Amino acid sequence: MAIARQRFELPDGVIYLDGNSLGARPRGVVERVQSVIVDEWGRDLIASWNAHGWMELPHKVGDRIGSLIGAAAGQVVMADSTSVNLYKLLHGALALRPDRTTIVTEAENFPSDRYLIDAVARQRSCAVVLADAEAIVDAIDANTALVCLTHVNYRTGRMHDMAAITAAAHRVGALVLWDLAHSAGAVPVELDGCDVDLAVGCTYKFLNGGPGSPAFAYVAQRLHDLVHQPITGWLGHAEPFAMRPTFEPVAGIGRFLAGTPPVLALAVLDAALDAFDGVSMHAVHDKMMSLSELFIARVDATCDGRGLSLASPADPLRRGSQVSFTHEHGYGVIQALIERGVVGDYREPAICRFGLAPLYLRHTDIWDAVDHLADVLQHGEHIAPRFQQRLAVT
Amino acid sequence: MAIARQRFELPDGVIYLDGNSLGARPRGVVERVQSVIVDEWGRDLIASWNAHGWMELPHKVGDRIGSLIGAAAGQVVMADSTSVNLYKLLHGALALRPDRTTIVTEAENFPSDRYLIDAVARQRSCAVVLADAEAIVDAIDANTALVCLTHVNYRTGRMHDMAAITAAAHRVGALVLWDLAHSAGAVPVELDGCDVDLAVGCTYKFLNGGPGSPAFAYVAQRLHDLVHQPITGWLGHAEPFAMRPTFEPVAGIGRFLAGTPPVLALAVLDAALDAFDGVSMHAVHDKMMSLSELFIARVDATCDGRGLSLASPADPLRRGSQVSFTHEHGYGVIQALIERGVVGDYREPAICRFGLAPLYLRHTDIWDAVDHLADVLQHGEHIAPRFQQRLAVT
Repeated sequence: MAIARQRFELPDGVIYLDGNSLGARPRGVVERVQSVIVDEWGRDLIASWNAHGWMELPHKVGDRIGSLIGAAAGQVVMADSTSVNLYKLLHGALALRPDRTTIVTEAENFPSDRYLIDAVARQRSCAVVLADAEAIVDAIDANTALVCLTHVNYRTGRMHDMAAITAAAHRVGALVLWDLAHSAGAVPVELDGCDVDLAVGCTYKFLNGGPGSPAFAYVAQRLHDLVHQPITGWLGHAEPFAMRPTFEPVAGIGRFLAGTPPVLALAVLDAALDAFDGVSMHAVHDKMMSLSELFIARVDATCDGRGLSLASPADPLRRGSQVSFTHEHGYGVIQALIERGVVGDYREPAICRFGLAPLYLRHTDIWDAVDHLADVLQHGEHIAPRFQQRLAVT
Repeated sequence: MAIARQRFELPDGVIYLDGNSLGARPRGVVERVQSVIVDEWGRDLIASWNAHGWMELPHKVGDRIGSLIGAAAGQVVMADSTSVNLYKLLHGALALRPDRTTIVTEAENFPSDRYLIDAVARQRSCAVVLADAEAIVDAIDANTALVCLTHVNYRTGRMHDMAAITAAAHRVGALVLWDLAHSAGAVPVELDGCDVDLAVGCTYKFLNGGPGSPAFAYVAQRLHDLVHQPITGWLGHAEPFAMRPTFEPVAGIGRFLAGTPPVLALAVLDAALDAFDGVSMHAVHDKMMSLSELFIARVDATCDGRGLSLASPADPLRRGSQVSFTHEHGYGVIQALIERGVVGDYREPAICRFGLAPLYLRHTDIWDAVDHLADVLQHGEHIAPRFQQRLAVT
């Protein structure tokens, strides 16, 4: 039995192993957005900003997510996209270490993070130090202004040791900025407990907020008055409606806002988070490890010699909520599985990626999915000519 | 008869004169977002990105808005908030004029625009030249890198001469960046016709996209390969799913994207734009001028000596889609009107602002609204003690 399968609307005949790309639809989101559109926007119009707490949504939803990533209230705010938030916090962090010259990241970091780290490094005349996943701590030195990493790797699911790397950065006076895109709602994260400085993350994966749902930014309380972000839009102002001629950032996490909050999308996300009500992230993690161990064991038992090679760490404590395998014809493998109703995804180069969302996945889903995988490989479905041309999917 | 009143759901007993802050709810948006949530996200899950054209929404909706602001297809994209887009294009513009030293804007520009212009000017070592609305052209000189203005002033409704100012900027080799927050869907705009370089705008005012709906960015075709934006997220990459290690911007307007598109909000906006189907912006403008002339004439006729002073230009061709009056107790005037079901808004300092959305407003609404205004002032409702404490509204 999945932890909260009854809280999701899942299509018949599909085993959905792509919740790490787009989470499934939680029950209740249609009713919520309909209510916001009809009863709030439609009826109370402009008054809804106060009457229905729209202005507070970035904080209210932020705190709900904070409770899933080990952040006490008042440190997480919903704003913009992960990319834009990363941009803001990269600038904010580097400005706190003006005499230092490097950003440490991982060569295998998510490309969008790489692009933004490169761009901000150029804008602030820093150098980027690329380290292998195993060698991050060794790459941190007295020149390091910031260590910026994605906690769980998007391709392999490899999970960094947040506590150890954060401590190593702090030992030399560097800051850390963690991207939690593949962590939030998937694995236990203790931002406050690890003394993390800054974090960003996405909500349309394991938090099930819907396609392109708003992202979040975390800034540790102790840094609130010190960090400034470059995109000084009115919602980050101390008094946005006083219409003052110069910018003065509001105290607290609100200064990381820029434009008007995306109310409808935040309402959908808020409703989606109900799926986590009463659920312990440790229970989610235990279930996830059990699902992933079953997945790997069944692949070992049924697909031996068929060209699959585990790309994820073998140790379940070092994996995020996915298992990945390399295969020469990985794209075809994924497409053939999709035709059978088993939805994983493909990532260049050669990675078959299977996301495991314990809220709605059961052991029986994993068992059946691997049976399909074994059948695909045995019958050569993955090398069918129709899979030679690739379509992009997120 | 309003142009398209039947295309909106308006609450009974309300005369809504705040469509310049949050547009009213168009019919059809609930059905559309429900369909996207249930039939697309819920049923087809990750496959929807291709199957339901989600990835194209920023361009498709952008082109629809382009048709309302005089922009040929392929030059408008939906992304982020107005603040974030302004930030991107300010940086993009200044990088094209590296040897110039100033940005010209208006002291009375919307504060958020002021904040962002100040911030980007500092980041790029430019100075900000503040000019009065009437003196913009005189302030442009050979040092000017960029003229950045809001087309229609948020307080007074005063509308700049886009063609004349753009031409003046171009004569000395400067670029122009127009904020169309109070123009798009309200007045005829000819971006291509005026040879505008760059523009941004908001969609929750006269375009009725819902609270916090996505913003747009316009970049003239001739600049597409020249302008770069600083927030180099993956969606602006030439091949976002190739997962390459370095950023290479896509050709065309797509390079102004950063993060994953906000699909649900874009779908709502797309449905909201149906209200403009078959509607000429010139018919909208004619109707708006007629409504505003009636408003001012009725105020002259019924509120003489009550302390109201027209803050908008008297010439309807120089006004956007609102009329504003100063009043010593402006906050109380607006609150007393709201209690009577006439919803305008208050802007510091002392401005009573009435937005006129011709798609859903009739002459009878204007007539009745001004009757209420005269009654409020005559009976002293606006100086009631309960209006001494102010609440923020957008």
